[in-house]
Amino acid sequence: MWQGLVNAMLTRFVRDGQLAVDYPDGTARRYGPGGGLAARVTLGDAGLVRALCLDPEMALGEGYMDGRLTVEGDRLHEFMTLLLRNRRRGGLPRWARGADAARFALRAWLQRNTPNTARSNVAHHYDISNDFYRMFLDDDLQYSCAYFNHPDLTLEQAQSAKKAHIAAKLLIEPDMRVLDIGCGWGGMAITLARDYGARVTGVTLSKNQLALAQQRVEEAGLADRVTLRLVDYRALKGPFDRIVSVGMLEHVGTPHYPEYFGQVRDLLTPQGVALIHTIGRVDPPASQSGWMQKYIFPGGYVPSLSELARPVERTGLWLTDLEIWRSHYARTLLEWRLRFEARLDDIRAMYDERFVRMWRYYLVACQATFEVDRQGVFQLQLAKSRDAVPLSRDYIATRRAPVHAGLAAQ
Amino acid sequence: MWQGLVNAMLTRFVRDGQLAVDYPDGTARRYGPGGGLAARVTLGDAGLVRALCLDPEMALGEGYMDGRLTVEGDRLHEFMTLLLRNRRRGGLPRWARGADAARFALRAWLQRNTPNTARSNVAHHYDISNDFYRMFLDDDLQYSCAYFNHPDLTLEQAQSAKKAHIAAKLLIEPDMRVLDIGCGWGGMAITLARDYGARVTGVTLSKNQLALAQQRVEEAGLADRVTLRLVDYRALKGPFDRIVSVGMLEHVGTPHYPEYFGQVRDLLTPQGVALIHTIGRVDPPASQSGWMQKYIFPGGYVPSLSELARPVERTGLWLTDLEIWRSHYARTLLEWRLRFEARLDDIRAMYDERFVRMWRYYLVACQATFEVDRQGVFQLQLAKSRDAVPLSRDYIATRRAPVHAGLAAQ
Repeated sequence: MWQGLVNAMLTRFVRDGQLAVDYPDGTARRYGPGGGLAARVTLGDAGLVRALCLDPEMALGEGYMDGRLTVEGDRLHEFMTLLLRNRRRGGLPRWARGADAARFALRAWLQRNTPNTARSNVAHHYDISNDFYRMFLDDDLQYSCAYFNHPDLTLEQAQSAKKAHIAAKLLIEPDMRVLDIGCGWGGMAITLARDYGARVTGVTLSKNQLALAQQRVEEAGLADRVTLRLVDYRALKGPFDRIVSVGMLEHVGTPHYPEYFGQVRDLLTPQGVALIHTIGRVDPPASQSGWMQKYIFPGGYVPSLSELARPVERTGLWLTDLEIWRSHYARTLLEWRLRFEARLDDIRAMYDERFVRMWRYYLVACQATFEVDRQGVFQLQLAKSRDAVPLSRDYIATRRAPVHAGLAAQ
Repeated sequence: MWQGLVNAMLTRFVRDGQLAVDYPDGTARRYGPGGGLAARVTLGDAGLVRALCLDPEMALGEGYMDGRLTVEGDRLHEFMTLLLRNRRRGGLPRWARGADAARFALRAWLQRNTPNTARSNVAHHYDISNDFYRMFLDDDLQYSCAYFNHPDLTLEQAQSAKKAHIAAKLLIEPDMRVLDIGCGWGGMAITLARDYGARVTGVTLSKNQLALAQQRVEEAGLADRVTLRLVDYRALKGPFDRIVSVGMLEHVGTPHYPEYFGQVRDLLTPQGVALIHTIGRVDPPASQSGWMQKYIFPGGYVPSLSELARPVERTGLWLTDLEIWRSHYARTLLEWRLRFEARLDDIRAMYDERFVRMWRYYLVACQATFEVDRQGVFQLQLAKSRDAVPLSRDYIATRRAPVHAGLAAQ
């Protein structure tokens, strides 16, 4: 019965490319018109076939992690791309979308975010191990989208370009008090203090991140200019001249956007400016990967602009600019994955095969999502007064220019 | 009784600056703590006092138009600024906001926009007289926000800068098919054809605009490259490589946003790009001037981003950039008003005093609104595919640069 359902589902679903499936009973089937993308997968047992009917996206991720779903030639990226392209065509039958629909309906509950949940959600992902993140991130440990605004940048250069771009938008002057909400391993805080003379407070909920960031601050001789704290951003007191928050809003959850943007407003000085950098959907809100929420980012959610606009309007802050990056994150994720695969032996010495497959699946699925779906990065610039930023955006390139000249000279 | 209510309303309302009121019965009262802004008005008759209770914003506009409300020393701008600043403080009693609330509740109905209403709404404003608009607009007859991105630009230069900025965002190449929705007196169409080699179709619903635009196109020798039509944008067939629409979305009405953005999508080629330029609120949606809707722009409405985001997401178009201009329109409106006042004798030769006061009130009220309220201009860049515009926004300044060098040399 379950195999018949999967067969019916795939017959209807695959309209683009070709998917070959080897079923556990020895049956081999091909789906789709062929031409373009092609992938071949083996379903290892009947339990996986059943799970694919009940919650296909979860079953795929779990099946791959557990080694019960294998992709021929490890063409996981092609396989994911094929699935996502066909999903955009809307061919998944309604009965197979029940789990997704339930998660979407319950998203406010799934994203509830008390200080306790926030701490445990962060620990789940960011406290894995600093040594592990060093395996595939750039040398500044920037764990967010890089800015490949020149075609030949390395990952290191593109991460520097991202920081320079954000610093330019923040119009940082020496001795300004800057708050970094979700400071990660301290790369942004160190850059803003060292290269722009800012006095930075960085906050994170990850003990591992804090420890390494603190060590890096001390090694850089910036302990007098950078203060790092293990604290929920909601508990902070201001004021700050500038606020930067990169890749943190994805953990906040839609029910907490008013609280988040309200806190940004309350912490800013009257001439304050904030730059919020987040993954964002250009599509309307819809269900998101249940697997990703279970295994990678508990409480994580990628907002649509239509979910951000009203909470931002209600703060009384000016939205002074909204930049939308496309494709940059797909490139960033590809760079991470190439480094991940290159360090596989070292990673296998630390973790089991299931962990390796889980991370590969995560990196590939995210890359393919940025390539196929209408998902990118939003940079929201927010200001407390209308004249806190210049009348035209020309200052961004001007302020960034010296840093870029440096990159070009490297 | 009515005078008592107005007195109670103003006592509560004026918390910033000082307002002196001479009532029709000879009473003179002062409201507000003083310091900063000050204005003195005379209410000419008891009917105006009553009207101020029932629908204050409408009564002010009508009273000024009719000469029953006079502002000492013609300090209308100070008076409007004082009112708007105090309105932001929220001190207007609930009973005085009934008419506003009703208009807000009925906004979908007030903004219904069949092809017939669209035609008559447009005729109401844009068919006044081409000679009248020549009195106060720049020599290219740009009737939308100019771009004062250098401090010393004249209105003419700032309007050229606006067109150059928009052309840069549209990435126009020679012979591209460009559609201008709401082409006004043809300035943008002529510029894109003459300076960028585009083949432009411009549409308007104003017969006067069409006649003058057509004449200008012929005088410029561009009749083979610019086609102008008196037609509803909803009746158009594509495809177009580029769509530009400046100051037209304000006439579309919220219930028609899906239709508007859907038509933009349907008319674009697969690599098409559109630039939609509209007045926009950075605040949540709220009631807007009933007087303005009655006398100046029937069917007009200034959207908040939260009203635009969902219809845009639903089109399947990429929002590739959102620029938010602040202060530029206040400056533009000031320039228009200064020219208007300088040509007062000529205008009085064409129109009666009520028309003059109506237009002065309109220009001043809009300027003060852009100065006091969180209202600006949105430029939405929309693309059909993710790679239709470059990966970074740097191209905007690069493409605009030759035009700007020309401006600087003038």
